[in-house]
Amino acid sequence: MSLLDSLNWRYATKKMNGEAVPQHIVDNIIEAAYLAPTSSGLQPFRIIQITSKELKEKIQPIAFNQSQITDASHVLVFAAWDNYTTERIENVFNHTAKERELAPDFFNDYKNRLINLYTPRTAQENFEHTARQAYIGFGLAIAAAAENKVDATPMEGFNNQELDELLNLPAQGLKSVTILPLGYRDTENDWLVGMKKVRTPKEEFVISMN
Amino acid sequence: MSLLDSLNWRYATKKMNGEAVPQHIVDNIIEAAYLAPTSSGLQPFRIIQITSKELKEKIQPIAFNQSQITDASHVLVFAAWDNYTTERIENVFNHTAKERELAPDFFNDYKNRLINLYTPRTAQENFEHTARQAYIGFGLAIAAAAENKVDATPMEGFNNQELDELLNLPAQGLKSVTILPLGYRDTENDWLVGMKKVRTPKEEFVISMN
Repeated sequence: MSLLDSLNWRYATKKMNGEAVPQHIVDNIIEAAYLAPTSSGLQPFRIIQITSKELKEKIQPIAFNQSQITDASHVLVFAAWDNYTTERIENVFNHTAKERELAPDFFNDYKNRLINLYTPRTAQENFEHTARQAYIGFGLAIAAAAENKVDATPMEGFNNQELDELLNLPAQGLKSVTILPLGYRDTENDWLVGMKKVRTPKEEFVISMN
Repeated sequence: MSLLDSLNWRYATKKMNGEAVPQHIVDNIIEAAYLAPTSSGLQPFRIIQITSKELKEKIQPIAFNQSQITDASHVLVFAAWDNYTTERIENVFNHTAKERELAPDFFNDYKNRLINLYTPRTAQENFEHTARQAYIGFGLAIAAAAENKVDATPMEGFNNQELDELLNLPAQGLKSVTILPLGYRDTENDWLVGMKKVRTPKEEFVISMN
């Protein structure tokens, strides 16, 4: 299925049927987010994969009791770095130099430029930037789910702070950004399933300067 | 090509060869961003498509003189709403109700909840949210380019304010977020083309809670 076919097939599923998504397909969906391009290749986000029934039941009230949280077999939480630090940036470039069999100091100039750019900024400013990167991966995971005919419900509506505490994210230097429950649409009980996909008129969306 | 194949094929192209991307393929790439899911379906971003040589030459110094700006046949600028306003939110739901042949007041409760949620916030807070939505579309456009074997260079490194002024974005209620030049890799002169794609070790990237 082409990317456009996948994007036309998908919709923000409101009711799932409880059927489990095979793990190898979830792995494929996570891989798409893993391969997402990010600023300077820093990948400043992580994916928390939740299958525990008990944990999903604890997340549900934090996410306005949306049924997809417990009807999904897998709930992915996208969590971004709470800040850029020298150590985190160093780790990425040390790893990249090693993987590419380059001298350990190969990236020094570039790396130091990033450290000098980011570390004087506030944690909040940096988090706004890391969160944006997480959205690239989030979008690609949504597309990968659709390609695999898996339904997903992109969610921003939840209490971030409560979710962070529940998942012990502060200790890992992370803050939750979005949630993506994965499952299969309950065609008979989802009011949105038959609705026309509507977008802003194309001529308003694209501004051409030729 | 599967989405994962596309994502493995792509890289942040450093040198393009000047060959033009056919317009119907650029249209396909823009369509992927157009179909991107966004918060409450508001699509709070736009794509500025630039093919004018003169304009690309003016953008180049604003984007640290990166060669891809002028070697690309098409430069896409992703620009997000500078704020959420009652009028903008109303417009979206009026359009959706019409397209779905629903009563004009069908979305009133939901719409008013969004207006009450967003309009008391500062323009900067709202822009952080609209910008995040733009990143979903940005990621999907990058994937669509790769699927079409078109090279792209995701760029955040430019002077946003100068670009906004050049493109007259403030008058349209928009602020630039990212730039995506589209073209074809210059295989012989791009130092990055042969480099191994490196990502954070998978076991660090995925945190499983079962």
